[in-house]
Amino acid sequence: MIMSEFPPPQNELSNTVSIKQVLIVGGTHGNELTGIHTIKRFEQHPALIHRPSFDTSTVIGNPHATKDVTRYINKDLNRCFDASSWGPSSMSIYEMTRAKTLMEQYGPHSKQPIDLVIDLHSTTSNAGLMLILDHLDPFTLRLAAALQVKAPKVKIYSASRSGREHDSLRALGRYRLGIEVGPIAHGTLHADLFQKTQTLIQQVLDYVEQHNTILSLTNPTSPQSPTPKVLTVYQYIGTIDYPKNQHGDIIAMIHPQRQFRDYEAVNPGDPMFLTFDGETIGYTGKTPIHPIFINEAAYYEKGIAMSLTEKKQITLDCSSHSSL
Amino acid sequence: MIMSEFPPPQNELSNTVSIKQVLIVGGTHGNELTGIHTIKRFEQHPALIHRPSFDTSTVIGNPHATKDVTRYINKDLNRCFDASSWGPSSMSIYEMTRAKTLMEQYGPHSKQPIDLVIDLHSTTSNAGLMLILDHLDPFTLRLAAALQVKAPKVKIYSASRSGREHDSLRALGRYRLGIEVGPIAHGTLHADLFQKTQTLIQQVLDYVEQHNTILSLTNPTSPQSPTPKVLTVYQYIGTIDYPKNQHGDIIAMIHPQRQFRDYEAVNPGDPMFLTFDGETIGYTGKTPIHPIFINEAAYYEKGIAMSLTEKKQITLDCSSHSSL
Repeated sequence: MIMSEFPPPQNELSNTVSIKQVLIVGGTHGNELTGIHTIKRFEQHPALIHRPSFDTSTVIGNPHATKDVTRYINKDLNRCFDASSWGPSSMSIYEMTRAKTLMEQYGPHSKQPIDLVIDLHSTTSNAGLMLILDHLDPFTLRLAAALQVKAPKVKIYSASRSGREHDSLRALGRYRLGIEVGPIAHGTLHADLFQKTQTLIQQVLDYVEQHNTILSLTNPTSPQSPTPKVLTVYQYIGTIDYPKNQHGDIIAMIHPQRQFRDYEAVNPGDPMFLTFDGETIGYTGKTPIHPIFINEAAYYEKGIAMSLTEKKQITLDCSSHSSL
Repeated sequence: MIMSEFPPPQNELSNTVSIKQVLIVGGTHGNELTGIHTIKRFEQHPALIHRPSFDTSTVIGNPHATKDVTRYINKDLNRCFDASSWGPSSMSIYEMTRAKTLMEQYGPHSKQPIDLVIDLHSTTSNAGLMLILDHLDPFTLRLAAALQVKAPKVKIYSASRSGREHDSLRALGRYRLGIEVGPIAHGTLHADLFQKTQTLIQQVLDYVEQHNTILSLTNPTSPQSPTPKVLTVYQYIGTIDYPKNQHGDIIAMIHPQRQFRDYEAVNPGDPMFLTFDGETIGYTGKTPIHPIFINEAAYYEKGIAMSLTEKKQITLDCSSHSSL
């Protein structure tokens, strides 16, 4: 796998970059209605996402799948952004052509490259309000920290090492933020999570506005705001599939003690699955893990019963100017 | 709409009919995994559904949709069983041909017509464990009453007047029982509801066995079992669509005070929907209703935000022999 065309933001450098172009994407998966209707609402009320110091665009990632209320037509769009896979033969795959089109319109070689992309998703797992980060650079970490101050229940997931840094739609932007909310059945809306998603986006835009404003000062200083010094991050370490028989058919379900218990510690021996015949299958690892995306509908076909994370503490340098 | 080829069972007569052929169906909708894996398990362990006094068959209703983990290929199979719609042109629709095939194999003119069909479904609404009845004949009502004694949380929904009596897969059988469990996101399994579904089916088969056994006695008498004399039934009276704009796009979501609150009374003025802009839309009817199938994913395209029911009490004649 080749690296993204964007180099990962470097250390403190990223904190001094002014954000000029923001792109908000819904409908990267066409059956995740929260993001789709969020985009429609913003397009009807552009004042909601207008901020003086930068431009904000909106787009439906996968319009054909959105029309059909299905995750994708030929291939998951959120795995199509690795440019090395765009051979002539792949252009018969709708999502491959769509990814190429989006990259040409918004990517690093476009007229107005995207500084920050916000990609909206929903999940059948109990994600609550999750921020998906690809890079743990200072700008992104401080953005996440600021959001967690506003909404303490927000969880932070680091997807670096998962491969999504290179092939997901987020590869469109230099800085990236995935917003994942759940549990929501695909093809449905939940009013509570819809409103929380919209609020979170407002808070992201407000943060970026403040970041730009402080940067523009001659002598930027750190405002006295309650940014946490230590962030809790769930770091991707792998995935685990459902138990299957020799034909590849699943033989077990998520154990009732795991269902909807995303982010919670699972210790050696704890229940993981329950077979169709009622037998419990325990966790055989030696160190605690914190599963997320437990029982995500779209991951059955990917062979993922849950994603495994390590719960980490990351210390922020709070002396820098962009903390809120 | 023509009537089903089966006349509705008549009053007390139905209680004296011996049940010889039972058919259990899963995968009438190909993304409702609970029923599909229930059928697979029964096919692997036929002893689970064997009873001495009758034959039990199993079938996947929509095998193509099951393979694709989608509700249907061309048309909802559960709306294809009205024989008057089977013109030559409709035979290009996969589900129409499938319905015809199933009717020829199991219907009233088949070699072994089905006396009782049990059709397994799951829903994103908070159905809990729901029995769907088409006919409120004595046999069916006493079966429902017996199940409610075993599992008091089981709810009884009368779908008569909804049209499903004639066009749903249940039209295959003289007696019909739909089992609807939720909330489950389509394309997923929940271990708890999977096990409860299997237990419920066992109880249905046990009831039928006892029914047949008592019928075969020379002088059947009513066993002294705690059958309730009054059943609570949620009777279908209609459906309500999402509020929409002039383009047919929805402009509101299920109100948070309605979400997951199936079966509960809604009184005039109570919140029903929340618009994307945050305004509450209240119930404008004059009499209380009890909505079910609230926020079912597959009903967005059908223009159904929820089904409306009237909560009724039905008095059973407990002197007859088939009570458990």
